[in-house]
Amino acid sequence: MSSFVLCTLSRTLRSAARLGNVGKVDLASVPWRSRAVGTRHMSYGRIVNGTGGKRVLWVTGGAAAVAGVAAAAFSHFQRAEMATRRDVVKEDEEGSIAERCRAFMSPPVTPVEQLEKRKGEIRTRMEMLIMQTQAEFCRALEEVDGGKFRVDRWSREEGGGGISCVMQDGKVFEKAGVNVSVVSGFLTEEAAKQMRSRGKVLKGKDGKLPFIAMGVSSVIHPKNPHIPTVHFNYRYFEIEEEDGSKQWWFGGGTDLTPVYIDKEDAALFHSVLREACDKHHPKYYPDFKNWCDRYFYVRHRGETRGIGGIFFDDLDSPNQEEVFNFVKSCAKTVVPCYLPIVRKHLNDSFTQEEKDWQQVRRGRYVEFNLVYDRGVKFGLATPGSRVESILMSLPLTARWEYMHEPRKGTKEAEMLEVLRNPKEWI
Amino acid sequence: MSSFVLCTLSRTLRSAARLGNVGKVDLASVPWRSRAVGTRHMSYGRIVNGTGGKRVLWVTGGAAAVAGVAAAAFSHFQRAEMATRRDVVKEDEEGSIAERCRAFMSPPVTPVEQLEKRKGEIRTRMEMLIMQTQAEFCRALEEVDGGKFRVDRWSREEGGGGISCVMQDGKVFEKAGVNVSVVSGFLTEEAAKQMRSRGKVLKGKDGKLPFIAMGVSSVIHPKNPHIPTVHFNYRYFEIEEEDGSKQWWFGGGTDLTPVYIDKEDAALFHSVLREACDKHHPKYYPDFKNWCDRYFYVRHRGETRGIGGIFFDDLDSPNQEEVFNFVKSCAKTVVPCYLPIVRKHLNDSFTQEEKDWQQVRRGRYVEFNLVYDRGVKFGLATPGSRVESILMSLPLTARWEYMHEPRKGTKEAEMLEVLRNPKEWI
Repeated sequence: MSSFVLCTLSRTLRSAARLGNVGKVDLASVPWRSRAVGTRHMSYGRIVNGTGGKRVLWVTGGAAAVAGVAAAAFSHFQRAEMATRRDVVKEDEEGSIAERCRAFMSPPVTPVEQLEKRKGEIRTRMEMLIMQTQAEFCRALEEVDGGKFRVDRWSREEGGGGISCVMQDGKVFEKAGVNVSVVSGFLTEEAAKQMRSRGKVLKGKDGKLPFIAMGVSSVIHPKNPHIPTVHFNYRYFEIEEEDGSKQWWFGGGTDLTPVYIDKEDAALFHSVLREACDKHHPKYYPDFKNWCDRYFYVRHRGETRGIGGIFFDDLDSPNQEEVFNFVKSCAKTVVPCYLPIVRKHLNDSFTQEEKDWQQVRRGRYVEFNLVYDRGVKFGLATPGSRVESILMSLPLTARWEYMHEPRKGTKEAEMLEVLRNPKEWI
Repeated sequence: MSSFVLCTLSRTLRSAARLGNVGKVDLASVPWRSRAVGTRHMSYGRIVNGTGGKRVLWVTGGAAAVAGVAAAAFSHFQRAEMATRRDVVKEDEEGSIAERCRAFMSPPVTPVEQLEKRKGEIRTRMEMLIMQTQAEFCRALEEVDGGKFRVDRWSREEGGGGISCVMQDGKVFEKAGVNVSVVSGFLTEEAAKQMRSRGKVLKGKDGKLPFIAMGVSSVIHPKNPHIPTVHFNYRYFEIEEEDGSKQWWFGGGTDLTPVYIDKEDAALFHSVLREACDKHHPKYYPDFKNWCDRYFYVRHRGETRGIGGIFFDDLDSPNQEEVFNFVKSCAKTVVPCYLPIVRKHLNDSFTQEEKDWQQVRRGRYVEFNLVYDRGVKFGLATPGSRVESILMSLPLTARWEYMHEPRKGTKEAEMLEVLRNPKEWI
């Protein structure tokens, strides 16, 4: 089981909207609530409701449009923007499932016939979205690196499986992993217990809770210390209770971990994310930006892992269609929020000192992932999990220096200062 | 607070022997019990009872004698044995405290006058032992490396402090850390809660439990992949309950993590440890060897961290004097069980492939330390802990390769086979 699944498994379950209610929700009366942020406000704006809605306003231009809006303000990114291929980000959810699958890194986990049969269901649309996101991101990275991803299909005895794409020791990327998983089965006692301990009792048939969990997750560690590490993860979860009712929710986020501060990069990255968020709710970006800073926090160091981005979980209102569309908006940003930054720094020169600092920061990345990341912790504790996919997020190399503290006034000290005091970038 | 202290804090407390009983224990009727091993048997043999006993049979020859017995069987180690300096391991607990302190890496944490005043108490004798062990080990490493340890004294707001000795990027050692800490104060709510959850309720005055914890711990990562990593930790803990009664116990162990199997090294290492154990109880070595294999287990990999050694905790019978003497026997082995191995491989040549495999194994070391090690986990979760001393155990460099699996029949595969199926080495 991959880390994203286990992350979702380990979170607090909520008792809010249920599958059966989709399409019947009164938009004006349903607040969405971000538990960790602790705010409560009304959904708003250009939201298209209903289970069958194929298009919403925000996707008319696809990812390239999102990038365009943000990049307009940043002259350095103009070439990069032009390099974003429109054919890759063509409007999805059109054409037959089989036809769309041909662009993927591998056939999807669920057989194509099954996907065709339940084409309109959110679980199918989400599986297609994560496969497409994996393909778009991998192709974009391959184009810039010149290397090829290794594609591993794996299956899980208890149900489902995944597709792990990894490029190691490429020209640009030291280690790049893009993982899809779609797993189903019954909640283990450990998983159920962990959920209960977080406040939610779920009633299963004979103590068993059927679930399905799917997502795409990625961590990219470049070689050049002037190109930041990026991480994203978008996931969907369904769980069935004794009475047959279903709980569902979405989670995800994208965050950036530079080795050195580049304010222009930070502004572009956050702008692209804000643009995607703003199309759905004006509070999404500020709330999910804060949540991100809080989640990716290496407590024992008193530092955030990087310069953040967005992070959310437990998202299940105003309704399934709108949350899915929001997640799709986010998934569509992974190429335009990162690739322009990669291209900008592709040929930056660097010193051994800069490389060493990158390695020290990689060590902190490892600390976060092994000590705090809920998905990793839960994944490693679950028998039968696919360890290589969970730990794909670790860098190829890392370094721990005793009592390392950058000298005052250096670029390294500037980076630390930001990690100790998260900033607004836009 | 250093990792050893937090390790001890986080373990199950026991209700067995108390400080007040020392010297009144009837040896024949008191079993010692190793909870994790699950066996129960009678103490035996050459045990000297009483609080004031200065010498027991086993220490007559000091560490050199222990090394001698084991090394006699291993011709390659003869030169190494000769190099073990007798002056360093001269009989301890003789002479004034002040005089003995002169050989230490730093003055002890507790002021010399206080130590002199309560010279006969176990806490004083243990503090002198850990300081002496630190000094002996550091000097032996400095001699073989040619480099010098950096010595950092640190204090803890709540009481006590420590002395961290670190040599980084030496000629022989990539990173060598030898840490002493002597801390006191009151158990935090978190610590108390963690203890209670493991089965033991402790009654403190107004909910507060005064404690003192001390120990020496060390991890040595050499540069040459043919020289193994070693770790040891010896610690003592006292906790005072509401009625003024004290609980105390010792814990510790030494274990070896080679990159390649060398049966002769493994046999020497385990022989020196068995020799020390056998002087105190015939079950100590086999039980603590098994405990070690179980404790240093990277569960998600299905591998032990290394080839083991000994590990014990909660040791509080037959009486304080005897357990202290056993711990002293163990502490006396740290030089003779490791330095001969270092010297033997000092000039071994190695390939880039061997160095890479070392780096992959270092990655697994990091995984164990950050994911499973109770001391590290508890330490990082405790506000005000000294993170640099806790994470001193991490290697300078490590590597994670996706889907790394050595080819069949290689030396790397042989190493993995041993880690997957722990062996008897003597």
